[in-house]
Amino acid sequence: MKLSRKDFLKTSGVIAAGMSVGITPNFSIIKSKAGKMKLTFEPYTLQLKHVFTLSTSSRTTTPVMLTQIEYEGIVGYGEASMPPYLGESQETASTFLSKVDLSHFNDPFKIDEILTYVDSIDIGNTAAKASVDIALHDLVGKLIGQPWFKMWGLDKEKTPYTSYTIGIDTPEVVREKTKEASEFKILKVKLGRENDKEMIETIRSVTDVPLCVDVNQGWTDKNFALDMIHWLKEKGIVFVEQPMPKEKVDENAWITEKSPLPIIADEALQRLSDVIKMYGVYSGINIKLMKCTGMREGYKMLNLARALGMKVMIGCMTETSVAISAASQMSPLVDWADLDGNILISNDPFNGAVAVNGKIRLLDLPGIGVEKK
Amino acid sequence: MKLSRKDFLKTSGVIAAGMSVGITPNFSIIKSKAGKMKLTFEPYTLQLKHVFTLSTSSRTTTPVMLTQIEYEGIVGYGEASMPPYLGESQETASTFLSKVDLSHFNDPFKIDEILTYVDSIDIGNTAAKASVDIALHDLVGKLIGQPWFKMWGLDKEKTPYTSYTIGIDTPEVVREKTKEASEFKILKVKLGRENDKEMIETIRSVTDVPLCVDVNQGWTDKNFALDMIHWLKEKGIVFVEQPMPKEKVDENAWITEKSPLPIIADEALQRLSDVIKMYGVYSGINIKLMKCTGMREGYKMLNLARALGMKVMIGCMTETSVAISAASQMSPLVDWADLDGNILISNDPFNGAVAVNGKIRLLDLPGIGVEKK
Repeated sequence: MKLSRKDFLKTSGVIAAGMSVGITPNFSIIKSKAGKMKLTFEPYTLQLKHVFTLSTSSRTTTPVMLTQIEYEGIVGYGEASMPPYLGESQETASTFLSKVDLSHFNDPFKIDEILTYVDSIDIGNTAAKASVDIALHDLVGKLIGQPWFKMWGLDKEKTPYTSYTIGIDTPEVVREKTKEASEFKILKVKLGRENDKEMIETIRSVTDVPLCVDVNQGWTDKNFALDMIHWLKEKGIVFVEQPMPKEKVDENAWITEKSPLPIIADEALQRLSDVIKMYGVYSGINIKLMKCTGMREGYKMLNLARALGMKVMIGCMTETSVAISAASQMSPLVDWADLDGNILISNDPFNGAVAVNGKIRLLDLPGIGVEKK
Repeated sequence: MKLSRKDFLKTSGVIAAGMSVGITPNFSIIKSKAGKMKLTFEPYTLQLKHVFTLSTSSRTTTPVMLTQIEYEGIVGYGEASMPPYLGESQETASTFLSKVDLSHFNDPFKIDEILTYVDSIDIGNTAAKASVDIALHDLVGKLIGQPWFKMWGLDKEKTPYTSYTIGIDTPEVVREKTKEASEFKILKVKLGRENDKEMIETIRSVTDVPLCVDVNQGWTDKNFALDMIHWLKEKGIVFVEQPMPKEKVDENAWITEKSPLPIIADEALQRLSDVIKMYGVYSGINIKLMKCTGMREGYKMLNLARALGMKVMIGCMTETSVAISAASQMSPLVDWADLDGNILISNDPFNGAVAVNGKIRLLDLPGIGVEKK
């Protein structure tokens, strides 16, 4: 039986290993507590330190929803970050989270069962779902008294350096911003416009630090894209994200096959079931908790991509230290991290994982490793 | 880009997500202890309750190696079970384990780093490696104070029923053994001999409990195999393991494609890197800790198979409750379990996970959930 890639994709339904309804153990050394979990949420508006410019819009704020799951006096923190272009809002999150009824679960340890239920409430709403997932992971980690990186067997000293994005601007401003970002060991540049080479040359005029490039589907011709990638390789770029529109599967695969640099899927995927479709089309994937419903599914995506021999990066939105810390727990496993979201805001209500001299530093706190300021 | 299955396999190198050298955190709420881990091991001989008959030999004992990792007064238990036909022995395990030097690790939580080192010491020796993996998981779970099923977010009430093997024998003895096994909700029958249909008919003469069939590569013709499988389906068989020799990839794939029952790979795979090769050839895989180096890799295999939409069963050798309990921790995630190894021995030094009325019962003890008798 020989399967083409398309057959492979067609037949490989992804089964989320979903669990499971439970009864209290009949003899317990480790006692299950009989309390109830209570989910609460409140909208919050992140203030960006700098104007955030996309091809279609600019903004100075990002709407988020901060969540808490309380159980027996312990509180787990979560967050949904919802930049407008992704389709969720404080209104949609509020509607979704109002439907989440955790009162029929009396054991927060049944993470698989609880999150399978949350996912089943409605389609989409991935950021809202992530806000429950993160709060539940924080709660369970606190109940156990350990951070997730330890429960995953990882070494906090092996966290990666995060990239830091240099926004598109005039050459003078780009040079200035690049100089200001000297603590970062890898910089990210958004390309896909008229002035791609100018941007790179401008940055290269002040630093030879490694760069990564996010094209955000901005190139329309595969031969142009490949020529650009060869040029970028000469300029010390380490990988390229989403060179062409996600729908152009064959073109993206053609680029990946011929590219001297790894090509990373971003817009092309969201959840675990998408990872297998990226195989043979991209060199690797960018995992974002807000798109994949949180830590549980993100960790599975990471391990699946590894088993497929693919590269893995982990990214973010503008987020508080809650979501950044959640993503950072698994960051010792990735090739590259783009976790600068909490550096970009001026009103973070939390302390947590943060880049120190460019390297992600995890706090030795249980759960996702955050504390309220 | 269209990849055939063979291209897919060729290009999909499996990367074990290996970790990582570590330094002590600089500000710790959860303190890392500064002790050393100490690995010890001793040979032990399992006494089988009944003679174990394979196509080439019979035996009444199984050699194992019992391991311990001690750290700050806490002891984690492990085990290598080494039925002779798999190539390891107490001698090879002793040689291998003598090379394992844990003295340069001062933090048992760095599971990935430690097990990557153990795996690198030599090729093969999968049971010996598993004995370190299991002891380390037991130790870390005890340090945390939680069983692994909880850290994996699973529900202990969702453990499967284990199958119980009815050995090949005269019809009278088979009928008698089948009646004695009435507490089990699924029975396993070894086929691949002259008397396959007779065995099934004999069991069916006394019970209509679901059966699974392990052919152990015993069928040599694919058309015969498929005819048998159709016949077995009518007899209430739920799946078939390894119908033809593992080298007959195209024949096994042909059978899987046409079979009305799931076809499970057993001899065809050992470790994580083999799972992807099973895709498109078998419906699912049988994970055995002694073949895959232990819990860490077994858990990854389970999640990878799920992501590929494959069935998963978990199996065992004749083993004490140490290895059975280790495998049982992830059993709420599998479709089928064949974890009767500790039921088959008369001198188990441990209490742990065991089938009760056929269903695996996990103890509420931390780590792998065992205690010395």
